[in-house]
Amino acid sequence: MRIDELLKEYKFVWAIDHANSLLGWDLEVNMPVEAASARGEALAYLALIRREYLLRLKDLVSKYEDAKDLTDFERGVIRVLKRELKYYTSIPPEVIEELNRTTTKAAVVWREARRESNFDKFKPYLSKIVELERIIADKLGYEGHPYNALLDLYEEGFTVNDADSVFNTLLPNLKSILEKILSEGKYPSRHPLEEVPYDVNVMKSINEELLKILDMPVGTRFRMDVSAHPFTTSMSINDVRITTRYEGKDFRATMFSVIHESGHAIYELMIDPSLEMTPAGRGVSMGVHESQSRFWENIIGRSREFVHLIYPLLRERLPFLKDYSEEDVYRYFNIVRPSLIRVDADEVTYNFHIALRYEIEKGLIAGKLDVSDLPSLWNDFMDKYLGVRPRNDAEGVLQDIHWSQGSFGYFPTYTLGNVIAGMIYAKLPGLRDKVAGRRFNEIKEFLRDRICKYGAIYPPKELLMRSFNDTYNPTYLLNYLREKYLS
Amino acid sequence: MRIDELLKEYKFVWAIDHANSLLGWDLEVNMPVEAASARGEALAYLALIRREYLLRLKDLVSKYEDAKDLTDFERGVIRVLKRELKYYTSIPPEVIEELNRTTTKAAVVWREARRESNFDKFKPYLSKIVELERIIADKLGYEGHPYNALLDLYEEGFTVNDADSVFNTLLPNLKSILEKILSEGKYPSRHPLEEVPYDVNVMKSINEELLKILDMPVGTRFRMDVSAHPFTTSMSINDVRITTRYEGKDFRATMFSVIHESGHAIYELMIDPSLEMTPAGRGVSMGVHESQSRFWENIIGRSREFVHLIYPLLRERLPFLKDYSEEDVYRYFNIVRPSLIRVDADEVTYNFHIALRYEIEKGLIAGKLDVSDLPSLWNDFMDKYLGVRPRNDAEGVLQDIHWSQGSFGYFPTYTLGNVIAGMIYAKLPGLRDKVAGRRFNEIKEFLRDRICKYGAIYPPKELLMRSFNDTYNPTYLLNYLREKYLS
Repeated sequence: MRIDELLKEYKFVWAIDHANSLLGWDLEVNMPVEAASARGEALAYLALIRREYLLRLKDLVSKYEDAKDLTDFERGVIRVLKRELKYYTSIPPEVIEELNRTTTKAAVVWREARRESNFDKFKPYLSKIVELERIIADKLGYEGHPYNALLDLYEEGFTVNDADSVFNTLLPNLKSILEKILSEGKYPSRHPLEEVPYDVNVMKSINEELLKILDMPVGTRFRMDVSAHPFTTSMSINDVRITTRYEGKDFRATMFSVIHESGHAIYELMIDPSLEMTPAGRGVSMGVHESQSRFWENIIGRSREFVHLIYPLLRERLPFLKDYSEEDVYRYFNIVRPSLIRVDADEVTYNFHIALRYEIEKGLIAGKLDVSDLPSLWNDFMDKYLGVRPRNDAEGVLQDIHWSQGSFGYFPTYTLGNVIAGMIYAKLPGLRDKVAGRRFNEIKEFLRDRICKYGAIYPPKELLMRSFNDTYNPTYLLNYLREKYLS
Repeated sequence: MRIDELLKEYKFVWAIDHANSLLGWDLEVNMPVEAASARGEALAYLALIRREYLLRLKDLVSKYEDAKDLTDFERGVIRVLKRELKYYTSIPPEVIEELNRTTTKAAVVWREARRESNFDKFKPYLSKIVELERIIADKLGYEGHPYNALLDLYEEGFTVNDADSVFNTLLPNLKSILEKILSEGKYPSRHPLEEVPYDVNVMKSINEELLKILDMPVGTRFRMDVSAHPFTTSMSINDVRITTRYEGKDFRATMFSVIHESGHAIYELMIDPSLEMTPAGRGVSMGVHESQSRFWENIIGRSREFVHLIYPLLRERLPFLKDYSEEDVYRYFNIVRPSLIRVDADEVTYNFHIALRYEIEKGLIAGKLDVSDLPSLWNDFMDKYLGVRPRNDAEGVLQDIHWSQGSFGYFPTYTLGNVIAGMIYAKLPGLRDKVAGRRFNEIKEFLRDRICKYGAIYPPKELLMRSFNDTYNPTYLLNYLREKYLS
């Protein structure tokens, strides 16, 4: 292969990434609490080491980037590395450092501000972060809207035009779907099981059974642990790990986090082994990654067929289910309820929360919104689309950690995940039968062939177009929701 | 401080070491099995990265090494770094690489050879390894005996003269102690509890209680896990981890591995916090490290006072102990039995096993022994000193993994550990009362002040001389054994 020398040099970066992944995983799962500051120092120094080894690839990337007869894989490698190099070389280190300094403090202040429901306290930090994000957008460069530069960090090639088109279709249609569901009253807005406590060890055994049902390679290429917030880490194609948490009541929560994270893990586990240790050996974008987790969590996990499959297990192990039928459990898994908090939202109302954050980020980065405008804009939007109004900013504009961490451009990928998951639902032949027949390997093979095996070889739009002859088209998601909730 | 610029640059190396420690720990404790090859690759690349960052310190070390007014800490830092640089710069990379290649194969062949009890199979690999170790000794340089160069890698400044003096005193005295113990018959050579199976979860709960008794900072700065072979890892002064294993019978084994590894951990946990992230922030040598683990395991853990302390707990949780008195358990913990296998040896016979290995390594490195001589030499030595003769090489010369890994010079540090532990026993006032009164913090304070807090600031001989006005003097160990087994 032509670019062997580049791939060889890249392995240093890969090794550091491998170590970083483990350091991050361990921090959430195992690390003794007083070790935090040493771990933080280690991560900071490893970031500098990574930067150095990545920048060493610059000349080799330049050497090959205009080469004519590259394979798709080679082009993918060059593309991914160019994107990484662009980030390191176009943003001045002082800006990154100032952002790090600001977000370190902002994370603390945000927590206080949320506790006190005091947006004014967080405002100066948010202003500073927005200012730095605008500088970063400028340094990265963009065509059209400056927010495009930030969107591209999380979803390569995704633009304000794309996003506007997605949300302009979604919002009115979702609103009408939601209104119909609420007026029909077939789906509950509350369920008694939400308050029922469970035995943690029993739920652990149920989650282990879920992994068996989903045919996860526990112990050979995969493992599950416990952490404060569920997440997925991939250290290698043969070392993918998820976590869940046990809150002690509302047993759906831990189950669906297991299925959600398993979706992320399945993506990483099915990347073609030949891509291991190369820049293309990773999920291609946040949106595509989220499509996998949402597909498994919502479209499979919350389906009638899946509930039918696992109801006997739940019934056997959870004594409090004795008075609940399979239909009851299905409804408990599919409550539709306009609510204030994004992370608690159901699959019908979720995207309203994202639309709001998207509009805010777009306006802030364009300089058309001031942070002072946020609380009232937030509350009015919630009122208008969901008919609920935060009583305070903790329930409103202060609820998410993302902005305090400097993550601008990330939120829209949650909706992309739903949109792409809807598309997969439409394109995967016989999905319901496969779930009913516990033929998850057939579902995985479809996902492998259309998405996973390619890693990051093709940019997300190209991948979706090749595999589905469509990109971020929200129609499929709307059809799925109508079929599920209105038929 | 003068050497700040050096300490700052060293932090890159420290960060890589921090990551390496976690990667190694995780490999034994958590890693899914099919991840081994990726993990191996990552470790190999990180070794190259570490080498590069360490070599960058060369000029700064040269700049300061002859400075006049350095503090003890600064001199310690320079000394440790000079030793590391010497290793990297004096041994040609090709030699290291050839050793790595050879030992990778040798480890596999050794396992087969041991299984088949076929020393001839392992012989060519051992010859090759000895040849490379002799080259390494030459490249490192030495005064006197070439084996000194290898001893120094594990125990700085320790020489063949020192070792000869230790073993020449130990062997005849241990032989006479052993003969008396065996002739008196007060200590059993077998105990029925060796064969009694236990419930793993019960033993886990007992080990957790042991950690409480020893006042280990579980969850804050320390943790315990399970692995195939017990070990201790320190990632930071505030992140020290041990492992144990559960073999299912002979409950001593897992308990004493917990106490042994806790001894190693206590050393690392009590290094002065100001040494964190510096080259001096580590245990000073293998011998001194082993002294801590052996002190806690043998001198404290196998004492009458400790047995008295934990007997009620054992009695309560292990139903099979109902017919065993405290005295029975004490004797079960202190069986004296000449045996073939080093890792099963008691505190009286253990050092014979090391003396044999020391003589062999010394002879091989000097070129005075050929690997073909080993089996008969081995068997005759065992016969002469312990009165037992291996029936085959699996029970004899093939039993240890060390040589297949290229570890020459390591074995003697096990005896040094025992020797120094004996010295600590002699110098620690009121030790038995402290154990009886569960005043382990007072014991720890003594160890902290005499050994642990210094990290690697002073070389081991200087440290021992400063703290105990003596170095590797085996008289204390002999006195301890006489007092314990013959009085």
